[in-house]
Amino acid sequence: MQKALHMIISSSSSSFIFPRLLKKCNNYNCINASSPISSSITTSSLLLPPFGPRRLRPFRAFVTRSESNPDGSSSPSTSVAFQSTGNTRKINFCQSCGGATKHEIPDGEEKTRAICTLCGKVAYENPKMVVGCLIEHENKVLLCKRNIQPSHGRWTLPAGYMEMGESATEGAVRETFEEAGAEVQVLSPFAHLDIPRIGQTYIIFLAKLKTPHFSPGPESSECRLFALDDIPFDSLAFSSMVVTLNLYIEDLKIGRPKFHYGIINKRPGTSPSAIQAYTLDGHMQS
Amino acid sequence: MQKALHMIISSSSSSFIFPRLLKKCNNYNCINASSPISSSITTSSLLLPPFGPRRLRPFRAFVTRSESNPDGSSSPSTSVAFQSTGNTRKINFCQSCGGATKHEIPDGEEKTRAICTLCGKVAYENPKMVVGCLIEHENKVLLCKRNIQPSHGRWTLPAGYMEMGESATEGAVRETFEEAGAEVQVLSPFAHLDIPRIGQTYIIFLAKLKTPHFSPGPESSECRLFALDDIPFDSLAFSSMVVTLNLYIEDLKIGRPKFHYGIINKRPGTSPSAIQAYTLDGHMQS
Repeated sequence: MQKALHMIISSSSSSFIFPRLLKKCNNYNCINASSPISSSITTSSLLLPPFGPRRLRPFRAFVTRSESNPDGSSSPSTSVAFQSTGNTRKINFCQSCGGATKHEIPDGEEKTRAICTLCGKVAYENPKMVVGCLIEHENKVLLCKRNIQPSHGRWTLPAGYMEMGESATEGAVRETFEEAGAEVQVLSPFAHLDIPRIGQTYIIFLAKLKTPHFSPGPESSECRLFALDDIPFDSLAFSSMVVTLNLYIEDLKIGRPKFHYGIINKRPGTSPSAIQAYTLDGHMQS
Repeated sequence: MQKALHMIISSSSSSFIFPRLLKKCNNYNCINASSPISSSITTSSLLLPPFGPRRLRPFRAFVTRSESNPDGSSSPSTSVAFQSTGNTRKINFCQSCGGATKHEIPDGEEKTRAICTLCGKVAYENPKMVVGCLIEHENKVLLCKRNIQPSHGRWTLPAGYMEMGESATEGAVRETFEEAGAEVQVLSPFAHLDIPRIGQTYIIFLAKLKTPHFSPGPESSECRLFALDDIPFDSLAFSSMVVTLNLYIEDLKIGRPKFHYGIINKRPGTSPSAIQAYTLDGHMQS
């Protein structure tokens, strides 16, 4: 379902090759550690064809028919990691009246949209927020081993799509309970990481356990506290997790955690399975 | 199109009545200044019926047929301020195959979704990000007077929906150019404000003018730099702007701007036109 694709990422923001990640990368058996932004972890988190099959829905649910499954057949896993990057060509019919769509630039706009030929309604698509928690407990952080695709068997912070009607913190707390069976208290905002290529924005909060209990939910096969030196950087699930955990470690080295904004852009020509082959652009902290 | 509605806002986060806003509210002719969270500004930004007509698309475009206009007729303004809060009942047909939808909780999930009865695809809805800039220039901030509904004639920071394929900073810069004709450089992340009731998250960046030039775009009738004491709090367009500008002013009083996270919840029983009748819940700063 996830097609490998080599592609060019364009970004208008200034490129910032995150040096702190390199050190960590070197620590964790990166294949190309001499190159600051190319290494070895294999999973497919960043690269998907812009106009390929409809994306998977990251971190969500278990077995159901989902938008990741355009043919409608049941899938053994519908937890997903990717969504549309704005491919209006995938929108063939109007959700409101069922009319066929045409794909044109609406009057007064600049982008091609799917417009209903019957009722005229425009189907807009926008990036989605993935909200999660970086849980600190006795100088360790809580990670979940994914029991679902994509990145089955790889480690991640508990995170998932923010739902309608909830706040980012509520969503992050909910996802943490669902994936790690942990009740947490959010401490502070930690990171906002855009991944324009796949239309996702990661919003990560620092949090602490309300009680020292956690257990894997249906989407996780294992949950474990890792000392910072033991974080399995060679088997993390997504680039966003590599970035988040490295930012956190580096913050702790020089003081307390800050708030970070950044844009994760895949390095052109690299494999989709190389989740450390990215640049963190436009990085700002406060 | 925007029906007034009194409703109960529920939030699991602890309520935090933002005291700094009260002072500002008092300064700007709030009707109910003695009540910390109820005042007078009349516009309809926060409250819309959860299952009413499909929401307008905030800050976007000019004249086109939009999702705000379910009957498909042209509207004099399609720039909009509200979107779906997750009303799957408005999704009658599958965007992929055109099949009729049923509204059920998919296997393994917890929320009712619109599920295609033909292909089984689930139509997910998620909150959307509104990205914008708070532009500092010679101790003043740049505001735009809206030339479109909703809140026509009221002042706002330049902001609008983040598009697929762009980062939050790119979107904020783009919206600023579209609405204020200003080329800006983003300086730092400033605020993440969730408005769960309408499925929106405001992401605001501090920015500066690259050149001291600006002029209203099609969606604005006027752009003006305001000294902090002159900000027209009695004629701002949206609650999110009230919160953002108050946070900024208060930050400057005690030092430099920080990064803020918060949840804007409308106070139960208040009029939709009272954009200062809210609580800022779960406020955190870093």
